[in-house]
Amino acid sequence: MRIRKKNWTEEELETSPFLVEDPKALKGKWNEKFGEEKPIYVEIGCGKGRFISEMSKLHPDVNFVGVEKFTMVVSRALRKCKLNECGKNVFITCIDAEEIEEVFERGEVQRIYLNFSDPWPNRKKWIKKRLTNEKFLTRYENIFGEKGEVFLKTDNREFFEFSLQAFSEKGWILKNISLDLHNSGFEGNVMTEYEKKFSEEGMPIYRLEAYYIERK
Amino acid sequence: MRIRKKNWTEEELETSPFLVEDPKALKGKWNEKFGEEKPIYVEIGCGKGRFISEMSKLHPDVNFVGVEKFTMVVSRALRKCKLNECGKNVFITCIDAEEIEEVFERGEVQRIYLNFSDPWPNRKKWIKKRLTNEKFLTRYENIFGEKGEVFLKTDNREFFEFSLQAFSEKGWILKNISLDLHNSGFEGNVMTEYEKKFSEEGMPIYRLEAYYIERK
Repeated sequence: MRIRKKNWTEEELETSPFLVEDPKALKGKWNEKFGEEKPIYVEIGCGKGRFISEMSKLHPDVNFVGVEKFTMVVSRALRKCKLNECGKNVFITCIDAEEIEEVFERGEVQRIYLNFSDPWPNRKKWIKKRLTNEKFLTRYENIFGEKGEVFLKTDNREFFEFSLQAFSEKGWILKNISLDLHNSGFEGNVMTEYEKKFSEEGMPIYRLEAYYIERK
Repeated sequence: MRIRKKNWTEEELETSPFLVEDPKALKGKWNEKFGEEKPIYVEIGCGKGRFISEMSKLHPDVNFVGVEKFTMVVSRALRKCKLNECGKNVFITCIDAEEIEEVFERGEVQRIYLNFSDPWPNRKKWIKKRLTNEKFLTRYENIFGEKGEVFLKTDNREFFEFSLQAFSEKGWILKNISLDLHNSGFEGNVMTEYEKKFSEEGMPIYRLEAYYIERK
């Protein structure tokens, strides 16, 4: 599907204060860029920015970075930050998730959010694209340093099964697992665009927290 | 509900060749009792015996022990073994799961099945009864010795979420997780009485395998 180009797209990309154009130059210096020393939480695949913009407002004590692969989508996330009147604790940047270690220094990130990541088909050639495969978990470990955590939500059963196992096999500890988030009594959930749509259709939303601690 | 006493109940308990009356006397000597050295798989809470009697016929290379708390239910499992014409690789015995270490020696058991265990309500006072809480996992580790595995099935979402976390927090590795067993392409599944009923009603069946390896 061709996404219709909107007039404001280029303008956002040229003028938005929420955009980081050269994220690799900030490796190890993100908190300098934010102007205040805070924990850094990264959403990989931030899409149209609903989740990260709302989270940044709910948690002023955290610095948020939204990472997104597609320029057109980045522009929508930038716009969302503007419309939501976000503060100085959120930036959006355009990279491929595979480059994450070139953007963040070891120990620079404390938490990663994976919200409704592309599940990819359950076949070997596609599994290497999944954001929770062994290779990606190693990348996350490298930017976490001594410890870190991944909070994951999805509507895709196979991807969730795969992710539970992937974290477990890598020795991470699973907590607060929910197999039906919206009927589980979990409080403080901020919904993404996808989540809103899927849960309104009555689909169960799966959620987990996975905790990494470096073995010395 | 009062279970109506059936005429054959006492007869089974008095004459069945599948009953072990004094399981604690067999600690460390189960394979002697079976008469042949094979891996030992234990079903904790074998209920009316459908699963264990069928498994024992499908896997003649394994010795099976079905453990059940209630005498009335034990008698039904014994009868099921008779009706299914089971061989010499299955015994049923009446104990409380808490006594498992008094019945099996360290290293004597290789696999435990937990099928549709009582989930107990999700409150602290009941959680200590759940067969996958920390205390029970320690008991299983003690009868496994160097390594062992638990295969679990349930229709109860909260119990499954709890179990995933309990195994993970204890450092066991999760594999072959299914959040909808009957729509997952899993082969060779032997159904229990409960499972047959619940899956016919369209309820998803959850399944996991958890692997323990002793840390030296």
